[in-house]
Amino acid sequence: MNKDLVIGVDVGGQSAKCGIVDMMGTVLKQTVMRSENYTDAQQYVDDLAATLKQIIKDADVAGRIRGIGMGVPNGNYYTGEIENAVNLKWANKSKVKFADMLQKAMGGIPVKLTNDANAAALGEMTYGVAKGMKDFIMITLGTGVGSGIVINGQVVYGHDGFAGELGHTTLVRHNGRLCNCGKTGCLETYCSALGIARTAREWLEMTDEPSLLRNYEEISAKDVKDAADEGDNLAKKIFDYTGTLLGEAFADFIEFSAPEAIILFGGVARNREYLDEPIKKSMNANVLPLWRNKVKLLYTALKESDAAILGASALAWEIK
Amino acid sequence: MNKDLVIGVDVGGQSAKCGIVDMMGTVLKQTVMRSENYTDAQQYVDDLAATLKQIIKDADVAGRIRGIGMGVPNGNYYTGEIENAVNLKWANKSKVKFADMLQKAMGGIPVKLTNDANAAALGEMTYGVAKGMKDFIMITLGTGVGSGIVINGQVVYGHDGFAGELGHTTLVRHNGRLCNCGKTGCLETYCSALGIARTAREWLEMTDEPSLLRNYEEISAKDVKDAADEGDNLAKKIFDYTGTLLGEAFADFIEFSAPEAIILFGGVARNREYLDEPIKKSMNANVLPLWRNKVKLLYTALKESDAAILGASALAWEIK
Repeated sequence: MNKDLVIGVDVGGQSAKCGIVDMMGTVLKQTVMRSENYTDAQQYVDDLAATLKQIIKDADVAGRIRGIGMGVPNGNYYTGEIENAVNLKWANKSKVKFADMLQKAMGGIPVKLTNDANAAALGEMTYGVAKGMKDFIMITLGTGVGSGIVINGQVVYGHDGFAGELGHTTLVRHNGRLCNCGKTGCLETYCSALGIARTAREWLEMTDEPSLLRNYEEISAKDVKDAADEGDNLAKKIFDYTGTLLGEAFADFIEFSAPEAIILFGGVARNREYLDEPIKKSMNANVLPLWRNKVKLLYTALKESDAAILGASALAWEIK
Repeated sequence: MNKDLVIGVDVGGQSAKCGIVDMMGTVLKQTVMRSENYTDAQQYVDDLAATLKQIIKDADVAGRIRGIGMGVPNGNYYTGEIENAVNLKWANKSKVKFADMLQKAMGGIPVKLTNDANAAALGEMTYGVAKGMKDFIMITLGTGVGSGIVINGQVVYGHDGFAGELGHTTLVRHNGRLCNCGKTGCLETYCSALGIARTAREWLEMTDEPSLLRNYEEISAKDVKDAADEGDNLAKKIFDYTGTLLGEAFADFIEFSAPEAIILFGGVARNREYLDEPIKKSMNANVLPLWRNKVKLLYTALKESDAAILGASALAWEIK
């Protein structure tokens, strides 16, 4: 029978989102496995395999699965291992040979994995706005800032499989904000959802400017968006600032790999109406003249509920 | 007859260095064409072709030349054109279809070109310390700072052919030094030979610290090296500072492409004894923990007099 389908699995701390996908990027069947309580990798793998076998059966597509692609925090494309993923209780102590284990549990169906940002880039290239592009950078703006870099039609994995940590490039070199990674001044500490909330808290403390945000107890990036939607000036200035910083960082990324486009993805990217203009302005002001107004700033075209599964599934099409 | 040789041409403002190279990286024959007075591209091409034909004849290797590779300022790998090269009087006004013109003048011998930093990276990968490496970054520290990035065994040209302008990534984001490119704070304004001289002048003005450098009229990077060799403390501190800045920049480059090594090339790289330690210290302090003490810092292994020709020649081996 023709192997005309793939499975995509997006592995997160709380759950694993699983779906069967066809070549057009249609998710034929999907399901979610709750996973916050797993502490043992083998148990996790066994239950994930059972879940996948069930949706294969439900969709009546046994024999048609070419392979399984997974987006996994700290997933190493070359080795198929997970290395010290702090948010996965079943994989935060030592290396887990995740791809091998799942492949065995699935009766030999080939398994490939990479980190979630690389998966997102592959998904965009396979099914989304990056279709036909050979050089682009995908930036995921969520709780953190991740990136998937595509050069010459290939995701950049680097010498060790972990390339593309653009969220941890240094944006503010002196007296920058402390990052979870232990460094200071990382892009992520300013331009992630948490970074935006941090900017809001700092600015509210430092100024007396009236703002709707003063009514919130614990401010989130979503609150800043809501306030901006209400016309709040401080909230808009926070997005201006965030966009300006993103543009400065993007200018350096362009100088590295001269991409056709930078593509934004993730919760924070939904604030396009507030971020688009300051990003473009700052990116073009900070990049070498030869790239000024030449690099596109795009936003993901994938349906949000499917995006994580599609990204992961895209990896499985590479399997010969 | 077997096409077992290539020609490398390093095109500069003052001269074109030309050489016939075999597969082992031996320069069988070389010559230099003075070129500072050319203002017409066709004249330049015709005379360069005559020069090349002469060394082919002198070396008695007619029929054995597989192709010609050239390292050219602002050379575009994809199109074979030179675009607004400010230092070439015969190519600073409009685009010059340099590769096509030379190929025609050479009776059809295939010609490929790229910029000099990419050529250096190819040379190192073909004949030097990067032999067998698939992921590395070559940094040329000369009058300016250039770079050639290799990912997955291929030089990164980017969407438009101009990728790898790492000398113009922003090192100092606010109140940085003005760069020739029009931006401020570029890595090149601090860590090139001119940048080092600029640091020396600034520090001599800002402090009263005694230094041998106070005896020089116009300070060059070479003077700083000579003073350091004499034990001059200020000169040594200038190298410490330069190395620290380079290390900070390299940390971000590593976060982009996770290379196996960063390889230094060019006049300033000869100050290895003063730069090596501060670069390593700063690079490892500023990079994500996962790459700490894992990325090699290497220096070119190519003989200096041959390096530019070898780099350019390496491009010609790609010709099928």
